[in-house]
Amino acid sequence: MISFQNDYSEGCHPKILERLTQENWKQRPGYGTDDICARAAEQIRSLCANEDLAVHFLVGGTQTNATVIAAALRPHQAVIAAESGHIHVHETGAVEATGHKVLAVSSQDGKLRAEDVRRVLEKHTDEHMVQPKMVYISHPTELGTLYSRQELASLRAVCRENGLYLFLDGARLGYAMASAENDVVWQDLAWLCDAFYIGGTKVGALLGEAVVIANKEISRDFRYAVKQRGGMLAKGWLLGVQFDTLFQNELYVEIAKHAVHLADKLRKTLHMCGYPLLLPGSTNQVFPVFSDSVLAELEKDFCFTFQQRIDECHQAVRICTSWATKPEDVEALCSKLTLLCAEKQERNPYGDQ
Amino acid sequence: MISFQNDYSEGCHPKILERLTQENWKQRPGYGTDDICARAAEQIRSLCANEDLAVHFLVGGTQTNATVIAAALRPHQAVIAAESGHIHVHETGAVEATGHKVLAVSSQDGKLRAEDVRRVLEKHTDEHMVQPKMVYISHPTELGTLYSRQELASLRAVCRENGLYLFLDGARLGYAMASAENDVVWQDLAWLCDAFYIGGTKVGALLGEAVVIANKEISRDFRYAVKQRGGMLAKGWLLGVQFDTLFQNELYVEIAKHAVHLADKLRKTLHMCGYPLLLPGSTNQVFPVFSDSVLAELEKDFCFTFQQRIDECHQAVRICTSWATKPEDVEALCSKLTLLCAEKQERNPYGDQ
Amino acid sequence: MISFQNDYSEGCHPKILERLTQENWKQRPGYGTDDICARAAEQIRSLCANEDLAVHFLVGGTQTNATVIAAALRPHQAVIAAESGHIHVHETGAVEATGHKVLAVSSQDGKLRAEDVRRVLEKHTDEHMVQPKMVYISHPTELGTLYSRQELASLRAVCRENGLYLFLDGARLGYAMASAENDVVWQDLAWLCDAFYIGGTKVGALLGEAVVIANKEISRDFRYAVKQRGGMLAKGWLLGVQFDTLFQNELYVEIAKHAVHLADKLRKTLHMCGYPLLLPGSTNQVFPVFSDSVLAELEKDFCFTFQQRIDECHQAVRICTSWATKPEDVEALCSKLTLLCAEKQERNPYGDQ
Amino acid sequence: MISFQNDYSEGCHPKILERLTQENWKQRPGYGTDDICARAAEQIRSLCANEDLAVHFLVGGTQTNATVIAAALRPHQAVIAAESGHIHVHETGAVEATGHKVLAVSSQDGKLRAEDVRRVLEKHTDEHMVQPKMVYISHPTELGTLYSRQELASLRAVCRENGLYLFLDGARLGYAMASAENDVVWQDLAWLCDAFYIGGTKVGALLGEAVVIANKEISRDFRYAVKQRGGMLAKGWLLGVQFDTLFQNELYVEIAKHAVHLADKLRKTLHMCGYPLLLPGSTNQVFPVFSDSVLAELEKDFCFTFQQRIDECHQAVRICTSWATKPEDVEALCSKLTLLCAEKQERNPYGDQ
Repeated sequence: MISFQNDYSEGCHPKILERLTQENWKQRPGYGTDDICARAAEQIRSLCANEDLAVHFLVGGTQTNATVIAAALRPHQAVIAAESGHIHVHETGAVEATGHKVLAVSSQDGKLRAEDVRRVLEKHTDEHMVQPKMVYISHPTELGTLYSRQELASLRAVCRENGLYLFLDGARLGYAMASAENDVVWQDLAWLCDAFYIGGTKVGALLGEAVVIANKEISRDFRYAVKQRGGMLAKGWLLGVQFDTLFQNELYVEIAKHAVHLADKLRKTLHMCGYPLLLPGSTNQVFPVFSDSVLAELEKDFCFTFQQRIDECHQAVRICTSWATKPEDVEALCSKLTLLCAEKQERNPYGDQ
Repeated sequence: MISFQNDYSEGCHPKILERLTQENWKQRPGYGTDDICARAAEQIRSLCANEDLAVHFLVGGTQTNATVIAAALRPHQAVIAAESGHIHVHETGAVEATGHKVLAVSSQDGKLRAEDVRRVLEKHTDEHMVQPKMVYISHPTELGTLYSRQELASLRAVCRENGLYLFLDGARLGYAMASAENDVVWQDLAWLCDAFYIGGTKVGALLGEAVVIANKEISRDFRYAVKQRGGMLAKGWLLGVQFDTLFQNELYVEIAKHAVHLADKLRKTLHMCGYPLLLPGSTNQVFPVFSDSVLAELEKDFCFTFQQRIDECHQAVRICTSWATKPEDVEALCSKLTLLCAEKQERNPYGDQ
Repeated sequence: MISFQNDYSEGCHPKILERLTQENWKQRPGYGTDDICARAAEQIRSLCANEDLAVHFLVGGTQTNATVIAAALRPHQAVIAAESGHIHVHETGAVEATGHKVLAVSSQDGKLRAEDVRRVLEKHTDEHMVQPKMVYISHPTELGTLYSRQELASLRAVCRENGLYLFLDGARLGYAMASAENDVVWQDLAWLCDAFYIGGTKVGALLGEAVVIANKEISRDFRYAVKQRGGMLAKGWLLGVQFDTLFQNELYVEIAKHAVHLADKLRKTLHMCGYPLLLPGSTNQVFPVFSDSVLAELEKDFCFTFQQRIDECHQAVRICTSWATKPEDVEALCSKLTLLCAEKQERNPYGDQ
Repeated sequence: MISFQNDYSEGCHPKILERLTQENWKQRPGYGTDDICARAAEQIRSLCANEDLAVHFLVGGTQTNATVIAAALRPHQAVIAAESGHIHVHETGAVEATGHKVLAVSSQDGKLRAEDVRRVLEKHTDEHMVQPKMVYISHPTELGTLYSRQELASLRAVCRENGLYLFLDGARLGYAMASAENDVVWQDLAWLCDAFYIGGTKVGALLGEAVVIANKEISRDFRYAVKQRGGMLAKGWLLGVQFDTLFQNELYVEIAKHAVHLADKLRKTLHMCGYPLLLPGSTNQVFPVFSDSVLAELEKDFCFTFQQRIDECHQAVRICTSWATKPEDVEALCSKLTLLCAEKQERNPYGDQ
């Protein structure tokens, strides 16, 4: 059985294991105050061409989101997110557990627009309602879509005008940077966002997310926030060493390109076979719609994640490639898709799926 | 200028002022452990025909909602509410400030149905999402609508089947009980809900809400919850005395009937004049739709609360009557409406508003 | 049975009841945005000779403390208090429920000194510990002691040097202002503290505390904080009218003087009879030490609050006078004390208690 | 420079690195639902001879403490801890950030006694104070001391009698189990505690703590708690694999014995040289008292952690050995101590340090 369920099924890039083994016996100061974390942070600052950025290494995405949001907001303030935003649906209320409301906005493609933000602001006029203070976006979104540089700039503008922070969840950021559609560069992120994070867990690391904070209102005392929310590892260098490795010779984006390349291949096959996509996409997540019978056939050999039911006999699934995906596994999936398509055509030469 | 903006513009029923004056110099133990609170609680228990109910007197609605919800839920649990529910939109995130997510369900008439609850439950399947544990409803709703006994029983059933609590916000409960449409009696409330509260602030008291808790999982240590959330008055008898007064000789429902009677009158006039309602209703809140010009005319003499824009030249407003509304003020409003309607007809004998 | 258990056993000063009755039928905007609240706030600002002060009326002390503290602190910050401080022992963890640690400092007389604050700061050096950010003091303290102007100035200085807020809990502030020992004036409070509150509940009001905030970092968006923590009454004028009344013609301090005068009388009698005090004092709280047998005799006619056991046969109790205490009740207590003292001397002319 | 500052300066036991490398490319389900986590949990259950135990793998100690405590307590409930308890002083208010008060008890040796718990219970009598509901102990304590089986049983008894949970923080549990003084076995822990955790980070793992929960009131829905508090790793097997390795062939206690053996050696040398200990001890932490001049000499080659100043010219430091400590490093330290001692004696043959 081959799994395409997610991008965190395997361990980490072998270079990370090598480094871990290499560094294992060296004594280091605790809690991320070591030389490797410093170097990894420096690499990220240099990539973003901004020496003033604060860089912190946290353990996981849910924790990172809750830590940044709780550090940024006063108790009566809220964060605006797309209805499909990870903080709204898939973090067990971690943000609310820090006391803050998530203001959810419906969105077809998982993206927030400047006008969505404006509409929320218009409705929140006085002290009987929470005060919107932050915009949370995922890039890529949970639906695999990307923001253009222009869209980010518009969000940035509406945030600036209204005193809001812009926070970008980059749990899969590598796959955005590796996409052919992408026109956002690292400097843009650091300049457009008040804070963002670079996902390690889903892009080649064992664990770890690198938070980059441009706004000093958020970064002030941020180590206290990390410690309080349980994100400060005694052996903090363990996180640093992973990002240090991933950002040497652009390994991070390079391994993401591998995943995107395989996903593109899959998208091409799906298109040729006439399987529609729930949403267009250009990163490592693919959301095809299959009839139940085709899916049943595929699931004899492959695992996917259920996304949503389309109608009585069709459903959308999520297929993830990753830095670790074997080309032959994608090959196998494509062959099977082609085969099923051919069989279908034989049985029903003029009809549709 | 006459205000119909809300049902808390005036002070309290004169009998309450009398009682306050009468009791003023008597020394009493603090924090609601006095004889008057005991008697008021006893009256409510007896009204509900259930000697096992816990009755607590709190200060205001936002506080009451947050206190009950935080006392009932474990940190990962959430409360389901209609999108228009007071806890979701008008309490400055007070529930989230206690750490809990509000799962909002869209609803045309402000009511939640059993099937809405089921749909939320179906989506919340594992530990990556919050766990729905309570259903919050307002009765009357924020849109002035009422639950029937049957609807409450269905909600109760879905809650029971799934281990959820049913909590009813009765900030305006008196006006529900006074409505001609109402088929829910006090015993029903105590039997169908795990907890509910009887609003004082909007129905004749200076301040105060009486929480009635049937489920011992929620009532256990409830005084700790009240104290911690700032709802325990040193002079707790001040709350008790108001409910004691309001529940003597059914004063509570009687004064609510006054408000509903006046609202009915207004509804009749609106109907006769051809002004549509945003929603049908039978309590003290009326939501007529006016053209901007008619509204401008009305607002020379009367204040309403803006509800929502309908189209480019119409908007809905909320008109509230209360236990304190003077019949002559409703009379004046009705006359003006009739007059405006007549003028319009003169100008445009065959047309519409 | 006459109770000296506390200063909130009776209702309110009759002038307040008069005003409530007078204002009862006038329609007013909700949530403290009315003319009376504005006037009451203006009176307080003028008393403090500072037009820039923010003044808000909240319902009770626990709520006020939690609201101010949560509005002022970021999540990793803590508040320093004496071990006997109300927020540390008698508010059911209300401050912790907003997410903040109370750093308790042991103190014999309930007061914090500048050096106590310094010691706490010295110990809190990095992000593995909370960050002290506020000093909380009660004036009078829970043990009836007072800060001198000089002591407050020292606290202010240490706070300033270290970027801490100074917050004064004045639940019984009137009794401090009325004390012969007091050398702090209203302007001092507004100038020395970042925030303080003027207690109504224990000094002649039915309920209500007036928060006065000098520091704009704390007052920014404070109405959101009040609403979220359940302290914003729909009929907010109910709070305003009480402070408006209490601050006309200095009624607030005048009625407090009545209480202090009676407490002084009691202290004199205790001294003459040879009953020691646990702590010296000059406000409305008296903490005499009685033998168990004397106390048993007294408790046939009077109620006190147990304070602490001194040894196997002595205990300290708290005796409270208030704005409502009848002079003849204190007279009766003094007579009984004198009588018991005389009897003792008769039985044991040369011995001690 | 050789560091004895703590027991988390190095990476992990080489067998763990081997296993990580071995398992790296195998696809596994996420979030700790994999086969390795299951096997590691099974090993722990079998060690504790109790098949009903819930076992969960979390990332770090602060997070683990906050997660267990928040899962166990209702909002008004508090946890009792020694004043030196990690949750009270070194976790940046993480427990308070979940809304709960830590009730600190002073303790000379870092241990809590049954009578301490009783005293706290006696003082917490009503709803104006938090309700003590859990006892938190560290074993070994932060001062390196151990509980005897009898002491744990007494704590257990007082908890049982009063409806409290007993929670044991075993961040350094291995070093307790490896101590010659220890008389507590794994079964005892599972039987005496409602919950405890087995520290990985400080005993040979890269990161990770294994929580063992015997009480179903706490373990119910525990995965929700872990997710919400940011402790659920996407690659959860990373934690499982470490405990699976550490619990094969008793590696966990074996490597802890190495550390304790070296600490014992050091204690012997200190004793022979006449350097007193702040506290007796038998685990991997040693707290010698040195004169400032001796310490200055030692710090040319070795790093320790400052513990506390004893008098004007002496201070106590903490020396930690660990599973990774090189025997030759302890040898070097012992030699230097002996040398310094000899020099001192030469200079001052009859005097004292």
